[in-house]
Amino acid sequence: MPTRDASPPLQLSPIVAGLWRLTEWNLDVPARVRWIEQALELGIGSFDHADIYGDYRAEVLFGEALQAAPALRARMQLVTKCGIRLRSAERPYRVNHYDTSAAYVRAQVEQSLRNLHTEQLDLVLIHRPDYLMDAGALAQTFAALSREGKVAHWGVSNHRASQFALLHQQHPLVTHQVELSTLMMDALDDGTLDQAQQLGLRPMIWSPLGGGRLFRDDDAQAVRVRQAMQPIAARLGIGLASLAYAWILRHPSRPHPITGSGRIEGLREAVATLDVRLEAEDWYAIWVASKGHGVP
Amino acid sequence: MPTRDASPPLQLSPIVAGLWRLTEWNLDVPARVRWIEQALELGIGSFDHADIYGDYRAEVLFGEALQAAPALRARMQLVTKCGIRLRSAERPYRVNHYDTSAAYVRAQVEQSLRNLHTEQLDLVLIHRPDYLMDAGALAQTFAALSREGKVAHWGVSNHRASQFALLHQQHPLVTHQVELSTLMMDALDDGTLDQAQQLGLRPMIWSPLGGGRLFRDDDAQAVRVRQAMQPIAARLGIGLASLAYAWILRHPSRPHPITGSGRIEGLREAVATLDVRLEAEDWYAIWVASKGHGVP
Amino acid sequence: MPTRDASPPLQLSPIVAGLWRLTEWNLDVPARVRWIEQALELGIGSFDHADIYGDYRAEVLFGEALQAAPALRARMQLVTKCGIRLRSAERPYRVNHYDTSAAYVRAQVEQSLRNLHTEQLDLVLIHRPDYLMDAGALAQTFAALSREGKVAHWGVSNHRASQFALLHQQHPLVTHQVELSTLMMDALDDGTLDQAQQLGLRPMIWSPLGGGRLFRDDDAQAVRVRQAMQPIAARLGIGLASLAYAWILRHPSRPHPITGSGRIEGLREAVATLDVRLEAEDWYAIWVASKGHGVP
Repeated sequence: MPTRDASPPLQLSPIVAGLWRLTEWNLDVPARVRWIEQALELGIGSFDHADIYGDYRAEVLFGEALQAAPALRARMQLVTKCGIRLRSAERPYRVNHYDTSAAYVRAQVEQSLRNLHTEQLDLVLIHRPDYLMDAGALAQTFAALSREGKVAHWGVSNHRASQFALLHQQHPLVTHQVELSTLMMDALDDGTLDQAQQLGLRPMIWSPLGGGRLFRDDDAQAVRVRQAMQPIAARLGIGLASLAYAWILRHPSRPHPITGSGRIEGLREAVATLDVRLEAEDWYAIWVASKGHGVP
Repeated sequence: MPTRDASPPLQLSPIVAGLWRLTEWNLDVPARVRWIEQALELGIGSFDHADIYGDYRAEVLFGEALQAAPALRARMQLVTKCGIRLRSAERPYRVNHYDTSAAYVRAQVEQSLRNLHTEQLDLVLIHRPDYLMDAGALAQTFAALSREGKVAHWGVSNHRASQFALLHQQHPLVTHQVELSTLMMDALDDGTLDQAQQLGLRPMIWSPLGGGRLFRDDDAQAVRVRQAMQPIAARLGIGLASLAYAWILRHPSRPHPITGSGRIEGLREAVATLDVRLEAEDWYAIWVASKGHGVP
Repeated sequence: MPTRDASPPLQLSPIVAGLWRLTEWNLDVPARVRWIEQALELGIGSFDHADIYGDYRAEVLFGEALQAAPALRARMQLVTKCGIRLRSAERPYRVNHYDTSAAYVRAQVEQSLRNLHTEQLDLVLIHRPDYLMDAGALAQTFAALSREGKVAHWGVSNHRASQFALLHQQHPLVTHQVELSTLMMDALDDGTLDQAQQLGLRPMIWSPLGGGRLFRDDDAQAVRVRQAMQPIAARLGIGLASLAYAWILRHPSRPHPITGSGRIEGLREAVATLDVRLEAEDWYAIWVASKGHGVP
């Protein structure tokens, strides 16, 4: 049933750079170009966007850098997302909502192409599961945009396993972007990572540091996890952030964690962990701290 | 594995009339005949029964009308259900329970045929998931009753996705009857509607008006939903009930809502919405009101 | 994809004897031999172990009996489990954790072979779902140990349906050992027993008497269930324990309950129920008492 994917297989870099907060980094165009070059030098070649990031402005900022240094494009994979209609000054929706209609997906993909000054997006994800998604119609939209050369690969983010299966039956999806961290482990138990492994798809992981809670929050879970992680990090000679990445990278689904940092040092902490293979005992000690109880 | 279904495909009318409360309508036989004729004139050709409705009496009342006006039968689809052993004066069970044994399903189907004065039921549903269901044996019962011409198609109601899959593997089911309304949205998230879409089966929807809660209840959810729906209904120039149906009809599974009204006006409110296509923003505004929080 | 299982089909006895508490029974070797002989005489030919039972000592005690009476081995099926690293004096792990690495599974299987003085284990189960399980690698370990003649069949215990599916896709599993009792009914609703039936696999049931809670606990659920079961047991002329087994055996998945008793009388109570077929009404009366509400 699934249309065969004519594009060559997608190869994301082991660590993916997330541009969620690009608009907050206050980088001028040359600084953005320099930031991208440094990421590439670290081996981070995949850049994760969404149409709505930075109040619909993040793609534009990134695209200005690509326009200024067009040779960069060939050295990277561009990932973006669409499907959320987020309220903003220019889009005064009554409520945030989802839209996976042919017209809207096409419009947003074409907007992302313009924003990013590129001919093709390497990967486009449906950002959230749209209850009103017509899987057959959406698959046709995917196929049409791929035929036109505008999108190489498709995937989804934050879908339940049954929602993923419904769309995957109609069009092959190459990844599922889900939340996972030492503070947020639902994906271990709700079947999404089991499904990814069963289909042989490597997930992308958002919020791998728990949105910063790991470092600063005083809630009981964050304190327990930090206390469990600190001696392990010390023993391994790495920082807390690096250990958080290593904890994710240990998962057998071979996930791609997405960093959210504008500091090159933040990217370096993620890349540094690619050589670290956590012992199962350490991995579970962190799980136990996060859950607040032992394994059954 | 599934036995091929020899019967022609089942075509239910877009709106299905539910006879759950027929015994409360206090209609004599001519009034029942007139009610059926009016429903048919509105394009409602499918009638949803269950052996137990009206303390096992609703089918009998409907059947009296069919006996009085036998030409009606050919213009309609008769749907019924079995599998619940409900306590009643004549059935003094210690507890209500389920029974999907060959003997009981056959007995109830044959009882429904007699009650409804018909040779064949167009669709029979297992009313609730029976933990003691032997899927292989039940599939044989289905096949035998179909071979004998007594039942054209089979389905289930209120099953989990895994329970549906277990039986569907043994005998093809043509629909899943589930609860869905602007006040009760579990089926959106528990995988049952995803499964129906994946299998290409149009679900039937019971309690589409939330059992009347939508109109009269003062609980926080009902108040929120009513307040969200009223301006949308006013803008579209339809009533609250019509909007509740339109909200269901917007779902991509192409559901068949089941009315429960004895008033022809109630049926008209449902049918009137077949032309209304809700905007995604309106659909989600009602979702947000029902959940009490925005989309993620 | 799944490697075909070259071994003849596994036949477990209808009731399986569990050795969880063998170390507490204080039986010397001749008494252990006598206990095994009596179990076999009752038709209980399958014995359920785990590497960790009795602080890693239960298999050793059982194996001493097999060494003393080696003719017994051919009359039984030996089942064991591995994959939990449980803290003990000799294994001072920081936390209990799971390990399904090739090296650990192999080491524990070979340890069980030595403990039990046998050349082959009839069935080995992965004791708990290991989040770090590499399904492909584990399947290779299964295949290698089967090729070497060390393990005839493989299964799992306490896995979610999606976890079971992931491993079963890589290597055929012959059973799923899950908890089920008149006090603990999650497996009825979480899809694991639906999956077992869909795959045609008979589950093994642990803690069929609710760990003894059924007989002695004063919590509301235990009291309700006991009160519902007592008149049914009296009417059937069996004891409470026998009724608890009969309730499980009535399930269409054709489960194998695992006893935990060292008393031959305890085994007899289980075996006695193989002739008892509970009426659906009795089965549901116990369900209702356990849930504290009627069926929907």
